[in-house]
Amino acid sequence: MKVHGEVFSSATQRVLACLYEKELDFEFVPVGMRTGAHKKQPFLSLNPFGLVPAFEDGDMTLFESRAINLYIAHTYEDKGTQLLYDGKKMAIASVWMDVEAHQFDPAASKLGGTVDAAAVQEKEAKLVQVLDIYEVRLAQFKYLGGDDFTLVDLHHLPRLQRLMGSQMKKLVDSRPHVRAWSADILARPAWLKVLAMQANN
Amino acid sequence: MKVHGEVFSSATQRVLACLYEKELDFEFVPVGMRTGAHKKQPFLSLNPFGLVPAFEDGDMTLFESRAINLYIAHTYEDKGTQLLYDGKKMAIASVWMDVEAHQFDPAASKLGGTVDAAAVQEKEAKLVQVLDIYEVRLAQFKYLGGDDFTLVDLHHLPRLQRLMGSQMKKLVDSRPHVRAWSADILARPAWLKVLAMQANN
Repeated sequence: MKVHGEVFSSATQRVLACLYEKELDFEFVPVGMRTGAHKKQPFLSLNPFGLVPAFEDGDMTLFESRAINLYIAHTYEDKGTQLLYDGKKMAIASVWMDVEAHQFDPAASKLGGTVDAAAVQEKEAKLVQVLDIYEVRLAQFKYLGGDDFTLVDLHHLPRLQRLMGSQMKKLVDSRPHVRAWSADILARPAWLKVLAMQANN
Repeated sequence: MKVHGEVFSSATQRVLACLYEKELDFEFVPVGMRTGAHKKQPFLSLNPFGLVPAFEDGDMTLFESRAINLYIAHTYEDKGTQLLYDGKKMAIASVWMDVEAHQFDPAASKLGGTVDAAAVQEKEAKLVQVLDIYEVRLAQFKYLGGDDFTLVDLHHLPRLQRLMGSQMKKLVDSRPHVRAWSADILARPAWLKVLAMQANN
């Protein structure tokens, strides 16, 4: 199993967190994004979009971090943490998985970047909306997908970690259920391993 | 089974196309977006984000069009068109499902809107990249997920239909495999039923 990526990339971290939760052995292959290697061959043969990470398992090559994680969680169902549900519970979890990808992620991305003030304000307003909805959801269930930690929560980890290191931390801290959920998932041993990989880089 | 939405909404059309492919009976409930009913109760109890569509099946309430379609395709596997694969083939299809959601959809959305020239240019450049990659993929496989029509293709229908009615049509027409794929999927009887619903509205 090989992950081609960069330890500072959110999407790469998302896959690394999943592999650590599943306690799987893998090889990490740094792509060299800073020199633009992800926009050239041979990386483009792994992902034609030139985005990290790409993932190899035997003869399978996959990209898109959330699709990679679904593959890992399904294929290695019996290893490490169970990250999926069955049936109707999974249908509900899938809704919240798409909420992460389409609502949370765009609002939480590039918060520390060089975007203009109006764009930051727009993102903050969106994030307030998302976190208000999360607060209601997390008052009913321990995790976003249901009462168990699943891929839904895991997919939030990289952006949430950055959020907590930015001035947007106040938006999490002011919502008790979101704050407790954030503290819980950011302290998972699998996630700490990803942070250690980044720190040692 | 109930779909709460609007026939002119891309996300609503995505779910309607799936229901017609699966030959399922359903009730369509117009939400009244033009009067802002989607941002108020009772709709917010179906989707706290105030976005259409929302979907009900017995005691299940779901939102996010792609998650709804995954639920329908899994739950009613034995009805109508088979829209999913198993195992490794599904893992590959899931990659292209995320490509639609994260690459194609943002580039193809609001192309006819009042966005500024720079934004249109940026979207066009992104769309060119995506369609170039689709051209390569569709030279190898009849459909994006593999050799069968699946949810991957179906999820493209609403945006693709609009694209073909805009000046971006040239980007599809100039790529032979993309053009053939587009003509094929836009002519599916299930999709024509969605267009008829819109026309009769």
